[in-house]
Amino acid sequence: MSTEEVDYVSGRTRMFGIVGDPITQVRSPELVSAEFRRRGRDAIMVPLHVLPGDFDAVVPALKALPNLGGLVFTIPYKVRACAFADELSAQARVVGAINVLGRDADGRWRGDILDGLGCVEGFRRRGLSFAGQRVCLIGAGGAGSAVGIAVAAEGPRAIRLYDVDTAKAEALAAKMRTTAPQAAVAVGPPTVEGIDILMNASPVGMLDDPRMPIAADAFPPALIVFDAIVKPERTSLLALAEKSGCRIVTGREMMRGQIAKMVDFFGYPESPS
Amino acid sequence: MSTEEVDYVSGRTRMFGIVGDPITQVRSPELVSAEFRRRGRDAIMVPLHVLPGDFDAVVPALKALPNLGGLVFTIPYKVRACAFADELSAQARVVGAINVLGRDADGRWRGDILDGLGCVEGFRRRGLSFAGQRVCLIGAGGAGSAVGIAVAAEGPRAIRLYDVDTAKAEALAAKMRTTAPQAAVAVGPPTVEGIDILMNASPVGMLDDPRMPIAADAFPPALIVFDAIVKPERTSLLALAEKSGCRIVTGREMMRGQIAKMVDFFGYPESPS
Repeated sequence: MSTEEVDYVSGRTRMFGIVGDPITQVRSPELVSAEFRRRGRDAIMVPLHVLPGDFDAVVPALKALPNLGGLVFTIPYKVRACAFADELSAQARVVGAINVLGRDADGRWRGDILDGLGCVEGFRRRGLSFAGQRVCLIGAGGAGSAVGIAVAAEGPRAIRLYDVDTAKAEALAAKMRTTAPQAAVAVGPPTVEGIDILMNASPVGMLDDPRMPIAADAFPPALIVFDAIVKPERTSLLALAEKSGCRIVTGREMMRGQIAKMVDFFGYPESPS
Repeated sequence: MSTEEVDYVSGRTRMFGIVGDPITQVRSPELVSAEFRRRGRDAIMVPLHVLPGDFDAVVPALKALPNLGGLVFTIPYKVRACAFADELSAQARVVGAINVLGRDADGRWRGDILDGLGCVEGFRRRGLSFAGQRVCLIGAGGAGSAVGIAVAAEGPRAIRLYDVDTAKAEALAAKMRTTAPQAAVAVGPPTVEGIDILMNASPVGMLDDPRMPIAADAFPPALIVFDAIVKPERTSLLALAEKSGCRIVTGREMMRGQIAKMVDFFGYPESPS
């Protein structure tokens, strides 16, 4: 490469876009593009700022570009995007939202939601499984639903679910019971008693919020503690878990897991064939 | 930058696209992106493959993206793209085509054609001017028209114009007479007699074609010879010109000149303010 040309985009580069409003805060362009590169793929993910009134016209136009391999959807489009998939994954149907839309080899567009699968992948990379475990999940909003449905599909023994909005918790519990008929699913205040894995998917502890999503001074050291929050990486919850000797899984690990799942989903598996 | 993220695209990166069909052969993504980078701008140009039947729906959709700063148009869209500009430059109106469409500070879309200006810029960087010169231009197609109109605007004394299709040559001559009323514009076979600058904008000599666009065994050493062809960089015409001791300007120099003009046009001048 001469200094006259860059080596990261050319006429042959396969395009991927992340669609959202606002767009400047998204992290997929630098993270997904790095994962494409790490796997030796000539592909790039770019930010596409789409306003709500334009969404229904812009998405079909983007899908019409033959060199566009897929789209990622973020706030506020995860639900609206479902209408543009020819086919939804089982999890996307249960959650009622997608965050990836990919073009199949046969030209059909498949939608899936990978947030929760990213969490499961983050656990897997630590050698941790949900099978047979007793899980307490705090938060039944967008992130909580995605995490909850993905975790339910991994065969936990019991799930305890909490949200400040009890109706939301009950609605998610119903979906989890469908996904995991073998599990005992209950709604109630968060606890670590009789729990193996404590998961926070609520916004409590985000950014400058020093609060804990559960009242506690210490945790049993055998407890595994997860926090979906990415900023800060060390929330008050995770700080207490570490102090208590617990193993932790961070929001950043979930994000990395999801990046890997996205690149897999877009048809670029780890070992190019 | 960690290896987990790339430094060339993020949620804040300003997007530009080149629209064409086919798309894999285009060079703007790596060249324009490199020029953005050289000027310290957080911007990228990506390839957008648009099929002819989708063009009229896709271009407005792309214009609706607030983080898209502009588009470049290549084959076969330079004429059709005019319909999507709120405002056309004088040269674009004369040529009847645009290759850049940029969003103004006030949100209006300006169209311009920079191919010919790139040629003039290539000459300028060599310290060469068209003012008062006698020019012979071979080729009155798309490239020839753009080069001819841009050269005419630089105040040449005389222009001799040739195309295998005489009607094309006459049509371009009429446009050049409007742009350069001071110049003597004539149509006829190419010659170097009484000529200061010989320009080829025909496809003769491209790729594996070893032919010369003008019959000659040698040129006067004072002649300046230009060839718009990029591949090969040294055409038979330029090889003979060098052998004859002439100064030459290459298609690659025109391309570089155009890249600089494009980045200027998109609102990123050489010295950021």
